[in-house]
Amino acid sequence: MAKNFTTREENYSQWYTDIVKHAQLAENSAVRGSMVIKPYGYAIWENMQKVLDQMFKDTGHENAYFPLFIPKSFFSKEANHVEGFAKECAVVTHYRLRNGENGIEVDPDAKLEEELIVRPTSETIIWDTYKRWVQSYRDLPILINQWANVVRWEMRTRLFLRTAEFLWQEGHTAHATEQEAIAEAQQMLEIYAEFAEEWMAVPVLKGTKSPNERFAGALDTYCIEAMMQDGKALQAGTSHFLGQNFAKAFDVKYLSKENKQEYVWATSWGVSTRLIGALIMAHSDDQGLVLPPKLAPIQVVIVPIYRKAEQLAEVSEKVAGLVKSLRAKGLRVKFDNRDTHKPGFKFAEYEYKGVPVRLAIGPRDLENGTVEIARRDTLTKETMPMEGIEDKLVDLMDEIQKSLFNRAKKFRDENSREVNTWEEFKVEIEKGGFLYAHWDGTSETEQKIKDATKATIRTIPLDAPEEEGKCIFSGKPSNKRVVFALSY
Amino acid sequence: MAKNFTTREENYSQWYTDIVKHAQLAENSAVRGSMVIKPYGYAIWENMQKVLDQMFKDTGHENAYFPLFIPKSFFSKEANHVEGFAKECAVVTHYRLRNGENGIEVDPDAKLEEELIVRPTSETIIWDTYKRWVQSYRDLPILINQWANVVRWEMRTRLFLRTAEFLWQEGHTAHATEQEAIAEAQQMLEIYAEFAEEWMAVPVLKGTKSPNERFAGALDTYCIEAMMQDGKALQAGTSHFLGQNFAKAFDVKYLSKENKQEYVWATSWGVSTRLIGALIMAHSDDQGLVLPPKLAPIQVVIVPIYRKAEQLAEVSEKVAGLVKSLRAKGLRVKFDNRDTHKPGFKFAEYEYKGVPVRLAIGPRDLENGTVEIARRDTLTKETMPMEGIEDKLVDLMDEIQKSLFNRAKKFRDENSREVNTWEEFKVEIEKGGFLYAHWDGTSETEQKIKDATKATIRTIPLDAPEEEGKCIFSGKPSNKRVVFALSY
Repeated sequence: MAKNFTTREENYSQWYTDIVKHAQLAENSAVRGSMVIKPYGYAIWENMQKVLDQMFKDTGHENAYFPLFIPKSFFSKEANHVEGFAKECAVVTHYRLRNGENGIEVDPDAKLEEELIVRPTSETIIWDTYKRWVQSYRDLPILINQWANVVRWEMRTRLFLRTAEFLWQEGHTAHATEQEAIAEAQQMLEIYAEFAEEWMAVPVLKGTKSPNERFAGALDTYCIEAMMQDGKALQAGTSHFLGQNFAKAFDVKYLSKENKQEYVWATSWGVSTRLIGALIMAHSDDQGLVLPPKLAPIQVVIVPIYRKAEQLAEVSEKVAGLVKSLRAKGLRVKFDNRDTHKPGFKFAEYEYKGVPVRLAIGPRDLENGTVEIARRDTLTKETMPMEGIEDKLVDLMDEIQKSLFNRAKKFRDENSREVNTWEEFKVEIEKGGFLYAHWDGTSETEQKIKDATKATIRTIPLDAPEEEGKCIFSGKPSNKRVVFALSY
Repeated sequence: MAKNFTTREENYSQWYTDIVKHAQLAENSAVRGSMVIKPYGYAIWENMQKVLDQMFKDTGHENAYFPLFIPKSFFSKEANHVEGFAKECAVVTHYRLRNGENGIEVDPDAKLEEELIVRPTSETIIWDTYKRWVQSYRDLPILINQWANVVRWEMRTRLFLRTAEFLWQEGHTAHATEQEAIAEAQQMLEIYAEFAEEWMAVPVLKGTKSPNERFAGALDTYCIEAMMQDGKALQAGTSHFLGQNFAKAFDVKYLSKENKQEYVWATSWGVSTRLIGALIMAHSDDQGLVLPPKLAPIQVVIVPIYRKAEQLAEVSEKVAGLVKSLRAKGLRVKFDNRDTHKPGFKFAEYEYKGVPVRLAIGPRDLENGTVEIARRDTLTKETMPMEGIEDKLVDLMDEIQKSLFNRAKKFRDENSREVNTWEEFKVEIEKGGFLYAHWDGTSETEQKIKDATKATIRTIPLDAPEEEGKCIFSGKPSNKRVVFALSY
């Protein structure tokens, strides 16, 4: 099956698109830039949601829901915010259609007095709401998350990575003090990093963004950055310390314990269906999708091997018990007993769809008390005793999960290096990967480096050691290295 | 707390609004007709989602996600559908804002070639997608559900019951045969009825809609109808048999086993955040919200009674163990140890928020090994031994759940009656409730009855017995009674 598809080396971008399409994760719709997330892709998102939602709740957050539409005037209230988002907004101007001469048309009499923006992010509508919720310090903190769709009118779109509409979660919290808000933003960064590494098996750098790459309206943006197999960086999650910007824009004050009116401090943080793109690009190979067991919709697929109907019946009976005992161990199992497709077709299909482990069971296995186990990550096969297979598979899930992480980590480490001169930088950036280099801390320099090489500062790592150095571009002094890369 | 709020008798509509507001379920936003669903209201929705989602999956459905925007031309493809939805659509016409003289304005250069409709329901965009997914009978059935937000530009809105934007699930299935599609539509009706009765504790009538009340584009609409405490009907869920209408509109054919090209058969079905409105109106009383235990975000709240800090410490120690053992029994428990509010305030708050059971524990209870249990549904209190309280509470949840259902059922039965003449009908409809009456089966008669009394046919019950009769309005022959009522 995979043989007809593009390899990474031939065309990395096409390889990605092939996997999204042929593993049945998503496809383009009739609406420019909007995708259809197919059941198999959506099941990955549901698994992600379940884990993240619990992590948010365990840290005291509650879910709520705010309007899809935002009055245009709300956008103008925070100057940087409108600057960042106005260029890519879907705007609702009318609220009715009518029958016209050439069919259905917009009814010109149904024009809105004030246009509505389809939310690209919800800070403005939420802070307009928080204004009504906050009077005193007793009303704080507010720790709310929303699962929602958002729209950003991107001109160049790619399935999962950059689409006009996407699904995400956006946390919006309100605090009495600056320290509390910063601690919240940092806590959420840690949660995102834990999710990426422990669940997605994707190693990430934790750090802050340079001013040029900051969220529109934030004082500080914390981020996790992952490396894809083409050496490009992908921003996988961000957590923003918003200071009092939105509180001031929407006049949200509270009466402190000391009986003074103070502006509220804010954070916001989000991850999106983009994570599915990261998952695909981090682990998959030329045989198709590779999924980490913890997020795989199907962890173990069982394919019966048979010639005659009686053999299928015998195998099915054995498998029924196995499916039950595997599910009792918490494994997500599928028994594919479709009689319309041959085992070879099924093998190729599940391999392409990245199912971590495939079991094949035939009449000979029944006789010998064995089963064939195939691992997706290593593409290795082994015949093993059926006895005790449940615990073996539980352990194997763990082993595959770790192995994928280690492989991705090794790749990242091999493609990360220090660079000390501008000449070196220009050569190395072409090769891809993370370049650790000194930077003078100015937006101007960052912009000039970007103009010359397309590389941006992906992050200023939280754990960057103090080190005397000179900016690779300007030669001005610098006291730590930042991470440059080409990026998605 | 509840004393300041409106009673049902004083003003039913205001009573409802008060509960939504003061129980912190939802509130109006700055966007006309769009609500903010607050954490406590959203937690009810999450509980509903969890149960429904599992019921859908247990019957073979998978989740997926389709675009928010629908090209205008798609709407015109199914004639009845566009007729039903065109009048209430939010229309996106532009994709950019710019800085103008008077601040931010819509950029006239960024006008869309074809306007996009914010989905009021997704049949059109989904059938455009299914066209690509279906070639042969092997591709069928497609059993897909979507959790999403939708927008219908309602002129008169009410929190939860009718809002411009609301949250819902919409199932969209494709089948090879008419019988299969009808069976699917009926299966989903049964699932909705089971959910309403077993989980919401709301008794419902199961039936079909008259042609006037049918979904725009359906051949048959199955529905569940509930009675609110003011005697009005509320449509709580619908399941549509769409025939081949959408398959024809979007040219979705499959190659049958007999090697013939056939149009695909369709269903769609949905319930929405409107169910929260139904839940409130079905059970609540003049003391506020009353929630059935199975959907209550908090099932048991524990309030400590104390004067001194040492007493709170003692009570808290005892409660810590209790909370643990109650959670081990699967109960959702909250211990409210806020020192900023008095027990009386907390009692009133949880009563108003409809928490099924409240426990109060003070120093005397510690001495005596007792606890005070208060039931929200009956507003009764009882002091009981702490020993064995866990099982007692598990049973009590069950008892309250059943008691709420029985109370609502009794109310509905008392407010349902047969009516045989037009004179009688006109009098009885004013009193509210369900009127079982003969109808001649024509749209004209139904419309005239509506014009004269505002009453509509809520449903033609599936279990209506065959019975010779005459239409209350036209006197023409009829062979079964249908249910008339005023409705939300």
